Amino acid sequence: MNDASLILVTRPVQLAADRPAEQDGFVVADPHSSQLRVLDLGATRGDGIFETVSVTGGHAHALEPHLARFAYSAKLLDLPQPDLDVWRNAVAAAIANHPPVPEMFVKLVLTRGIEGGDIPTAWVYGEQSGDFSAARTEGIRVVTLDRGYRHDVAKTSPWLLQGAKTLSYAVNRSAIREAKRRGADDVVFVSSDGFLLEGPSSTLVLRNGNRIRTPKTDQGILAGTTQASAFEFFEAEGFETSFEMIALEELAAADAAWLLSSVRQAAPVRSADGLDLAVDADLTGRLNDHLLSSPN
Amino acid sequence: MNDASLILVTRPVQLAADRPAEQDGFVVADPHSSQLRVLDLGATRGDGIFETVSVTGGHAHALEPHLARFAYSAKLLDLPQPDLDVWRNAVAAAIANHPPVPEMFVKLVLTRGIEGGDIPTAWVYGEQSGDFSAARTEGIRVVTLDRGYRHDVAKTSPWLLQGAKTLSYAVNRSAIREAKRRGADDVVFVSSDGFLLEGPSSTLVLRNGNRIRTPKTDQGILAGTTQASAFEFFEAEGFETSFEMIALEELAAADAAWLLSSVRQAAPVRSADGLDLAVDADLTGRLNDHLLSSPN
Repeated sequence: MNDASLILVTRPVQLAADRPAEQDGFVVADPHSSQLRVLDLGATRGDGIFETVSVTGGHAHALEPHLARFAYSAKLLDLPQPDLDVWRNAVAAAIANHPPVPEMFVKLVLTRGIEGGDIPTAWVYGEQSGDFSAARTEGIRVVTLDRGYRHDVAKTSPWLLQGAKTLSYAVNRSAIREAKRRGADDVVFVSSDGFLLEGPSSTLVLRNGNRIRTPKTDQGILAGTTQASAFEFFEAEGFETSFEMIALEELAAADAAWLLSSVRQAAPVRSADGLDLAVDADLTGRLNDHLLSSPN
Repeated sequence: MNDASLILVTRPVQLAADRPAEQDGFVVADPHSSQLRVLDLGATRGDGIFETVSVTGGHAHALEPHLARFAYSAKLLDLPQPDLDVWRNAVAAAIANHPPVPEMFVKLVLTRGIEGGDIPTAWVYGEQSGDFSAARTEGIRVVTLDRGYRHDVAKTSPWLLQGAKTLSYAVNRSAIREAKRRGADDVVFVSSDGFLLEGPSSTLVLRNGNRIRTPKTDQGILAGTTQASAFEFFEAEGFETSFEMIALEELAAADAAWLLSSVRQAAPVRSADGLDLAVDADLTGRLNDHLLSSPN
């Protein structure tokens, strides 16, 4: 069994004024035993939220943007606002409780708890990351799949939770299986009205000449934490960056494309729906060096 | 804490030929302890399926249709086909292990298990049902909410898993919260192109004169097990029944409407988007008597 670290967060909600301040708000748990009841709404309804943070050399990347997005997801799901000081400390404890490794990830999860119980369940889990060197250098093959929603669905139908990072990810995993059936590695979702959106667990970034673009986040997609760090890199390199509505057809027409995510980092797209895209090995290598060493 | 019964299904996949036939395929567990690991894909990705079966007088209603739908959901999610003999026996054990009560429910759950482990997690949980007498007699207020998908999305985009009963129900629960914010009790989802679909955990049935209609199930909605039993009742009463595409506007224009589900049974709709609908107390009462006593 892999090494792993598990922190059960015992104070996922805001501190009541009468709670003693010296409590850390979490306990260290055994990652290889059972911790959840079958009645937990995380397990029975996918009713909760998560974030995955990349850690290199003991440093959690983009932790504050991840925590901010975690709090935003909690708001969209009407969950209690997480006490970010407790979560920050729990992430540090998950890192400290794991044997040192070059790359690990820490996952933060908050569920609505046992049905009727009104007490969220919360944990932080740490584990060594897989080896993504092939995806980072040779690139990935993607297929575009219809997500079924119009690009403006987050505005018209907020109850659909588009833009929240929820535990209800069965469709995201189903889409990956569909990609494998089509001989590809990953997916770029497209709105029902033809706009590029995001991957099931990644952000799309396109390069056309000196322009770097990512789909506008008001289309029911997540604001990418890795994409934000990548934009810093591209801007320092002299590229122009922007958030735009991007039509499906522009993927195959791009000079280069990447899917960005916290653990795999920048994976260059080497084919889209069977059409080859150029992989810029030098630019991608420097981008990944930036992402893996960035203080953000 | 409520009485409850929990059966951990240890053989959720088809029996290998060399496995001894005398194994029951399940063990009785303590429902009040922890059984799941935080790495279970049911808890981290809502990646699994479920069914909820109503039990009165020790009899599991519509068990075979529930098991058939469970197997269908497994297929849509590329999960191993459940060994229905084992599940049938586990349901019987959950009933036998629960103190006798007038109405209880049994929930069947199959998750994809621990990531990378390739062994599904499976359980059957039994508990006394809540008191739904007010919903069954006085009725419920519903609002219609856009589900965001076209009516034909299950055909065009099967990776969206519409028509599968998955654990990724965060949107269904979010929709219920939206209904409460609007002063209602429940939801009728509508396709983005204006057709009535289903409730977050129920089937819609409309009456117009002698005609009883429910939305066609090829619109990415579940085939209702309680609706099937209700149609037997209506046909015996001399009504004509059919599955149809039904426009949003027809809900308010119906002579009567019900949301049907396994545990609450038939809840008459007393208002839709704030417009009153007539509740036929006599017909609804006889329908619920049928559903609660039916051998199916």
